Amino acid sequence: MKLAMKLLVAVIVGVIVFGTAYAQFAKPEQAIKYRKSVMTLIVAHFGRMGAVIKGKAPYEKAEFARNALAVNTLSSLDWEAFQMPGSDKGDTTLSSAAINQRSKFNEAVKAFQNDTANLAEAAKGGNFDTIKSQFGQVAKNCGSCHKAFRTK
Amino acid sequence: MKLAMKLLVAVIVGVIVFGTAYAQFAKPEQAIKYRKSVMTLIVAHFGRMGAVIKGKAPYEKAEFARNALAVNTLSSLDWEAFQMPGSDKGDTTLSSAAINQRSKFNEAVKAFQNDTANLAEAAKGGNFDTIKSQFGQVAKNCGSCHKAFRTK
Repeated sequence: MKLAMKLLVAVIVGVIVFGTAYAQFAKPEQAIKYRKSVMTLIVAHFGRMGAVIKGKAPYEKAEFARNALAVNTLSSLDWEAFQMPGSDKGDTTLSSAAINQRSKFNEAVKAFQNDTANLAEAAKGGNFDTIKSQFGQVAKNCGSCHKAFRTK
Repeated sequence: MKLAMKLLVAVIVGVIVFGTAYAQFAKPEQAIKYRKSVMTLIVAHFGRMGAVIKGKAPYEKAEFARNALAVNTLSSLDWEAFQMPGSDKGDTTLSSAAINQRSKFNEAVKAFQNDTANLAEAAKGGNFDTIKSQFGQVAKNCGSCHKAFRTK
């Protein structure tokens, strides 16, 4: 009876904690659609900066800063969308590691948020060498996170 | 000759102005994908607030404020994605009015940005009556903008 009670409490706590986080998405497909949208926007704004860094587009301070801020802003949207149980199935390239290794995933998110904040700050400053270096730092996040949490 | 020169200047200025704005999107499909992503995210965060306003979800100050801020932040992403010539064709419900009536569209964008900023401010304050009223104001923007610039 004591064990049954403990299990019951564990289930209730689980429902409350996860319920709060995942109530945002009624179905896995909604979480998938949401996170794909976030990724589309991050890629768009990151790509514009990438073209400048590679010398394929001219460096314009205000425009670059706008893109850096956009990526940093997008980094604070709902990463729970990547952690919803069941959302590693279907039309997605999410690895189940994102769901199963929550603390590792959350650490990666924090690093991304931190590095994009630094890039936004550097972009506001306008020193291109600093910007380049911070951009590289952000790019590393993309690579390592995709390697750990994406199936392809 | 004078007229020809004027026309040439007009074309060059046009290329510079539009070139800057649309260089962000190489193809109409990219603009469509971008703006659909923005809309998906706005709808997600707006919907969460809507559920609270309708009494279908409990009011939690911090969570509501986070959603209000998300919508306001999203309101400052690239609205040029809605104004790219040719992007009213294909897999989209954009009305060509968004492209042809630029100043009317831009006014609608400004109103949306302004009203979502007020909602974010109200949400930070936490007075539910003020929040409700500001939420209604934002909702009006959705309705009028969709009526004017969406085909269905």
